[in-house]
Amino acid sequence: MPHIAIESGEPGIRGLFAFRPETAGPLNALAEVLLRGDNTLSRGERELIAAYVSGLNECRYCASSHSAFAAAQLSEGMALVDQVRANPDSAPITPKLRALLAIAAAVQKGGREVTGKLVDAAKAEGATEPEIHDTVLIAAAFCMFNRYVDGLATETPDDPAAYYAQSAERIVRYGYTSTTPAAGQPG
Amino acid sequence: MPHIAIESGEPGIRGLFAFRPETAGPLNALAEVLLRGDNTLSRGERELIAAYVSGLNECRYCASSHSAFAAAQLSEGMALVDQVRANPDSAPITPKLRALLAIAAAVQKGGREVTGKLVDAAKAEGATEPEIHDTVLIAAAFCMFNRYVDGLATETPDDPAAYYAQSAERIVRYGYTSTTPAAGQPG
Repeated sequence: MPHIAIESGEPGIRGLFAFRPETAGPLNALAEVLLRGDNTLSRGERELIAAYVSGLNECRYCASSHSAFAAAQLSEGMALVDQVRANPDSAPITPKLRALLAIAAAVQKGGREVTGKLVDAAKAEGATEPEIHDTVLIAAAFCMFNRYVDGLATETPDDPAAYYAQSAERIVRYGYTSTTPAAGQPG
Repeated sequence: MPHIAIESGEPGIRGLFAFRPETAGPLNALAEVLLRGDNTLSRGERELIAAYVSGLNECRYCASSHSAFAAAQLSEGMALVDQVRANPDSAPITPKLRALLAIAAAVQKGGREVTGKLVDAAKAEGATEPEIHDTVLIAAAFCMFNRYVDGLATETPDDPAAYYAQSAERIVRYGYTSTTPAAGQPG
């Protein structure tokens, strides 16, 4: 049972967006820029970073959601997402993405865990400074989203498979800002 | 030295806002709603939660900034901020704020650390559900901001006392959104 009364009855962060539309706006705008805005990292790669960090934070709702969003936007689908979440070192991804995931894992532990060595390794694999910036901020943002969702003990979906698949379809098609109640769309 | 080239030369999160104005917009909008928007918690109380969490995350830039912002908006000033950051249990604050700070400390460790017992204790001291929601989200947001600032190894100010005092004057007067480079104001 959630720590606060979620009248919409929606699970996870969607219930919180309905509870407090004033904060839903900036939170969704941040997700939209970071995960779907113009970027040299693909949308699938960025969702993979989000799913990976959410898994490290053991946030089931966010990890399941962003795994579905990543799978829907990567040609290798959920098989790759599962491999990355289990162990990025052995997953069939580019050395650059592997180095960025190592930075994301450091951010999950704490900001000062991101060493010059980790950053230099990513740069050596071709990561640009904007890519390093965005990886750090995506990882940091999911340390927020994960704590928000679990800190208020939000519900998990009744029918997870259908729920996350529908969410993925909606996010891939319409993005994050259309899911904000304040935007006047049913999401 | 920062992990990425901050051409503006500004310390802390301000250098990052200049580096990536597209994410600065939603980040500042979030801070503005959470820390300065309409609320039954005062601006000083909310900045105190931000300063306290930033201290727990050992983020010197954020802890110093938000301590200054809290002190400027609390009649008891920095003496109270220092007491709260050292030990909320012995600080001369209301039982309600003490209970909310205990929730914030739990969020800093991880979302699932926020127990029903902590939430019930806050409610017993008069905390409303929106206040509990906002406390969790403020604490979670600073787990993001702190990791963002330290994860990119941003600089600390050359003259900390003057820098944080000037920042406090600007934030108290103009708020967070006026400091966004994208807003076209010098901040």
